[in-house]
Amino acid sequence: MIVVMKPHAQKEQIDRVCDTIRSRGLDCHVSIGSHTTIIGVIGDKTKLIDVQFAALSGVRELIPVSEPYKLVGRTGHPENTVIDIGDAQIGANELMIAAGPCAVEDYETMHETAHKLRAQNIKFLRGGAYKPRTSPYSFQGLEEEGLKILAKVAEETGMKVVTEAIDDDSIARVAYYADIVQIGARNMQNFHLLRKAGQCGKPVILKRGLSSTVEEWLNAAEYIMSSGNANVILCERGIRTFETATRNTLDISAVPVLKAKTHLPVIIDPSHAAGARAYIESLSMCAIAAGADGLIIEVHPRPDTAKSDAAQTISIDCFAELCKKISELSKIMHRTMPGDDNK
Amino acid sequence: MIVVMKPHAQKEQIDRVCDTIRSRGLDCHVSIGSHTTIIGVIGDKTKLIDVQFAALSGVRELIPVSEPYKLVGRTGHPENTVIDIGDAQIGANELMIAAGPCAVEDYETMHETAHKLRAQNIKFLRGGAYKPRTSPYSFQGLEEEGLKILAKVAEETGMKVVTEAIDDDSIARVAYYADIVQIGARNMQNFHLLRKAGQCGKPVILKRGLSSTVEEWLNAAEYIMSSGNANVILCERGIRTFETATRNTLDISAVPVLKAKTHLPVIIDPSHAAGARAYIESLSMCAIAAGADGLIIEVHPRPDTAKSDAAQTISIDCFAELCKKISELSKIMHRTMPGDDNK
Amino acid sequence: MIVVMKPHAQKEQIDRVCDTIRSRGLDCHVSIGSHTTIIGVIGDKTKLIDVQFAALSGVRELIPVSEPYKLVGRTGHPENTVIDIGDAQIGANELMIAAGPCAVEDYETMHETAHKLRAQNIKFLRGGAYKPRTSPYSFQGLEEEGLKILAKVAEETGMKVVTEAIDDDSIARVAYYADIVQIGARNMQNFHLLRKAGQCGKPVILKRGLSSTVEEWLNAAEYIMSSGNANVILCERGIRTFETATRNTLDISAVPVLKAKTHLPVIIDPSHAAGARAYIESLSMCAIAAGADGLIIEVHPRPDTAKSDAAQTISIDCFAELCKKISELSKIMHRTMPGDDNK
Amino acid sequence: MIVVMKPHAQKEQIDRVCDTIRSRGLDCHVSIGSHTTIIGVIGDKTKLIDVQFAALSGVRELIPVSEPYKLVGRTGHPENTVIDIGDAQIGANELMIAAGPCAVEDYETMHETAHKLRAQNIKFLRGGAYKPRTSPYSFQGLEEEGLKILAKVAEETGMKVVTEAIDDDSIARVAYYADIVQIGARNMQNFHLLRKAGQCGKPVILKRGLSSTVEEWLNAAEYIMSSGNANVILCERGIRTFETATRNTLDISAVPVLKAKTHLPVIIDPSHAAGARAYIESLSMCAIAAGADGLIIEVHPRPDTAKSDAAQTISIDCFAELCKKISELSKIMHRTMPGDDNK
Repeated sequence: MIVVMKPHAQKEQIDRVCDTIRSRGLDCHVSIGSHTTIIGVIGDKTKLIDVQFAALSGVRELIPVSEPYKLVGRTGHPENTVIDIGDAQIGANELMIAAGPCAVEDYETMHETAHKLRAQNIKFLRGGAYKPRTSPYSFQGLEEEGLKILAKVAEETGMKVVTEAIDDDSIARVAYYADIVQIGARNMQNFHLLRKAGQCGKPVILKRGLSSTVEEWLNAAEYIMSSGNANVILCERGIRTFETATRNTLDISAVPVLKAKTHLPVIIDPSHAAGARAYIESLSMCAIAAGADGLIIEVHPRPDTAKSDAAQTISIDCFAELCKKISELSKIMHRTMPGDDNK
Repeated sequence: MIVVMKPHAQKEQIDRVCDTIRSRGLDCHVSIGSHTTIIGVIGDKTKLIDVQFAALSGVRELIPVSEPYKLVGRTGHPENTVIDIGDAQIGANELMIAAGPCAVEDYETMHETAHKLRAQNIKFLRGGAYKPRTSPYSFQGLEEEGLKILAKVAEETGMKVVTEAIDDDSIARVAYYADIVQIGARNMQNFHLLRKAGQCGKPVILKRGLSSTVEEWLNAAEYIMSSGNANVILCERGIRTFETATRNTLDISAVPVLKAKTHLPVIIDPSHAAGARAYIESLSMCAIAAGADGLIIEVHPRPDTAKSDAAQTISIDCFAELCKKISELSKIMHRTMPGDDNK
Repeated sequence: MIVVMKPHAQKEQIDRVCDTIRSRGLDCHVSIGSHTTIIGVIGDKTKLIDVQFAALSGVRELIPVSEPYKLVGRTGHPENTVIDIGDAQIGANELMIAAGPCAVEDYETMHETAHKLRAQNIKFLRGGAYKPRTSPYSFQGLEEEGLKILAKVAEETGMKVVTEAIDDDSIARVAYYADIVQIGARNMQNFHLLRKAGQCGKPVILKRGLSSTVEEWLNAAEYIMSSGNANVILCERGIRTFETATRNTLDISAVPVLKAKTHLPVIIDPSHAAGARAYIESLSMCAIAAGADGLIIEVHPRPDTAKSDAAQTISIDCFAELCKKISELSKIMHRTMPGDDNK
Repeated sequence: MIVVMKPHAQKEQIDRVCDTIRSRGLDCHVSIGSHTTIIGVIGDKTKLIDVQFAALSGVRELIPVSEPYKLVGRTGHPENTVIDIGDAQIGANELMIAAGPCAVEDYETMHETAHKLRAQNIKFLRGGAYKPRTSPYSFQGLEEEGLKILAKVAEETGMKVVTEAIDDDSIARVAYYADIVQIGARNMQNFHLLRKAGQCGKPVILKRGLSSTVEEWLNAAEYIMSSGNANVILCERGIRTFETATRNTLDISAVPVLKAKTHLPVIIDPSHAAGARAYIESLSMCAIAAGADGLIIEVHPRPDTAKSDAAQTISIDCFAELCKKISELSKIMHRTMPGDDNK
């Protein structure tokens, strides 16, 4: 960490900063410029985490030079994390493809969807049982009934279930019925829920908050890891910007940025980013070409009548077409699509 | 609600939209333009809340013309809401001024702060016991111990306590010890917590999410009101933009916008917006001049050593100076500062 | 266009809107809802372009239903535009790849760069002679001297030159010496310059403004086209958001959005989007996979000592590696890389 | 300036950075931390302005510690700049209030407006003769004819004229006919035009770009000052964010931020920020309370029929009411309204 003093800061101000650093058992290195003095801190900066240097008189700014996330960062863990779930792996060579409707609507639709996806070798089934909705008057999901439907079709098909948890009650139930617990964008900084996710015993997909920086996102993942769960998957789903041509703005650069900063798997949700069917193929292809480890896509047998997110949900036929293209692309990226090795 | 069809939409597509509307017991009015047809929906739109018109073929976009928030909106409730808390009112003529440290640190500091604020006729004491922090390794607050300290100094001084709740456990305790429950920016769309806030039995300050639109904020307030709590105060604390000269960008226009759309009281938190002491006075003055009903400000007897948010915390003397200026300004705005009527 | 009246607007207010519409020779269709009246305008809306409906009393909002850009829009011109420049085409099957240093530094460097790029079959050479810089004290480019260097190496190699014009004087000179005139992000709404670009007689690359919406961008292209130049290429180079992990946020979704809305070619500048070498490969690959027609990339024989944008400039070897990967990817996208047909 | 090396950077990398610094005649101070080395630069940093340190291997980031704007910054010029224009001053005790229609429409309207404003002691008349418009098909202003109308009513009333210039041709004419040259938001980084503004011989209002940071804005002002014009007025008019409840988001914090960083006068344009009449009063009051030196407001005798920006233009009566409130407020702020000293 570096403390930059204001131009012409006085000696007493500089001394006070140094004393504060030394009082915590660290050392400091003072560099006096022609009109600016900078103070480098030497030693374990975690001892200073609650010192408010910026408030000390004469201080201009604080510059952190090491990341605050120890478990999530690639520095201390250079190899990619690979998460094993039964016969599937996330973060390894094979792409993780999850598909299914936005919301679990009823057993019949879920059954039909799952069997058709399974026939395409898709291993992960998505579907929301607990729906965080902007308005209290919108459909809020089937809740535990929805989880039971997911568990039943998962048993029938051998698929793994990904579904969102939104609070204490739902996270316990999701962890019981599903294979992967999803933490949604609106809860990315619900630190209580992140700690519960750290204790839930199942892998967690952590979606990026609408206006969260990559740094905040990694810190949120650190909450989960530091609570005991190493199996975290990061999911970019679009950020909020001034542009309204798409529902959100897919921050595709986050893929290489995350790959540089963390060892955790990174997947993309093109459906929430685009908000429109017409753009799903393009965003899915670019996600894989950018180096993502997988996709989570909204698919429904009859998308026009889907109970939520219909405008961004694609049909099963359209999804099958997309998978063919991704399969071709995966070869160039030295990845495989599920089912490719069987051919 | 208006459904705008794509240019040259076919008759069957238009009929399908109309049939969908009529099947829910509403009527529609079709207006055929030279190349665009629009369909106005007549009747109670809440019956259509889960129809995904945008997904129907031939539909270009949906334009809502009435607000989804019924309880929060000014349309159905033209008079300003005034919230009574003992001898204080929020949303009435007297400005609500809340002050205190970012975090409750210990009894002595809180005691000193409260007595000094009370001597200035300040009625509301702020201080965080549960702190949502970006990093899991930062100070997370004294929790229930902090609430007990707040309650003790409140009893000594007759002040009302405002403090944040972050989850099921804390909201029950905050509602027990404090006078006003604060829902922080990061939890603005934690819908589970909003429902709990609706049932907590105490007035609620709902801070705006970092990247929440005014519409989303009002919908969040609707969650609280529709869960049974009419005493909601909206607090603007800065939004996230590209500008980094301040910690957040204070959206001062939100004050007149909210005053037009809702009957709920609106206050400003200049401390989190600015992120720097030097700007607190300017932002506080502009808040009152824009028509806000109050302020919540970080104040500490020794701000340089405050345990969190030190850079944006002002001293008690500085706060006293500010109150004098606000008192002058309040007269022009036909408002009063607490204590002014005693003079 | 649709005029939405405020709830319970009065008959006189509605009549006034209708009279205004009819006074311009158009017709209107009034649709009276249970509490909202909407008025559809029938006929040629361009006659209303300067009527300020939103200011008429009783009007809630105006909803445009057709695009304001007639020449740029795909509606009136369904086929993709293909621009011919000597032996190269932009917007056709072959990808347009432009490469070269941020700024023209001297003849030797440009000569070396061009010959090495040409050996890789690259057809377009980039390099700035006029540099718009945030600070007046930064290097502003070699100006006409730079253009002469570009023209000389272009003649030696047969490459086509792409370079930026920033004002009346420079656009005349750029159009004289170069093959493609670039309008930079900061000048995207410099309407005077856009009109000059429309009269310059050479194809134009129009970069997206840092905070311009896709709609504004297409309107800017409409300025160029309506001034007489049909050869416009749109270049996405990242937008300004709250995220600082990259220099800008590449809005990759703009590719499919533009492909739906306009017939003009779309290319990507990964260098300015990323701001860092390490991310260029990932962003280039994702651009082609998303459906872009080409790339413009900063390349320098000794990037560490490049005079500007060094941090985001890649070496010629690194660029050659990237081209190999793009070549593989182009096959899947049913495109070709320059030189592929020779093999 | 501080160069922060990557963790565990090698000695040769550190030496190379130091050699580069010393080769320009500066000195450096190396501070070796437990895993990070930082290098402070001692001496005149302008000698390094074109060195691309971030591109040198082993460098993590560059931290500027002094501002790049020498003429604009308050450091070298602690007193506020006061601009004299005849009997008016900008940046002194009296608030600068400019009012008038968005566009000059005809002599009669301008004459009526100017006389009514003058009767309220308003000294500055605004009105656009050259209009930068998003669509090429919108009204583009009366151009020189408009300037002549402005000059005529100015002569009749003794008012000073503020009007926008958009290119080489218009800036010469505006400087000839008007008293203050306005550079609009879209041209804030049109560096060619900024240099012309620096040579135009009249004071310049520099509006903030829609997505420009305060730093970029000050650098743009530095272009004008370094071209020979010390009379620059900064005008905040709202920035682009995700919020759509107002046309732009007024960044009111920019007022105290600018007052800390620069000696130049700062005014606010509430009309373009709000985009709606209903919010003009609130935003005007907050601007003055925040410490702004003045306002520029869109006023029209019949705002409903104004040719542009009608929705945000207020009537002359409404403006008169607003001026009374601002007059009261100005006393608290130790400022005066024009005409107040006559009473």
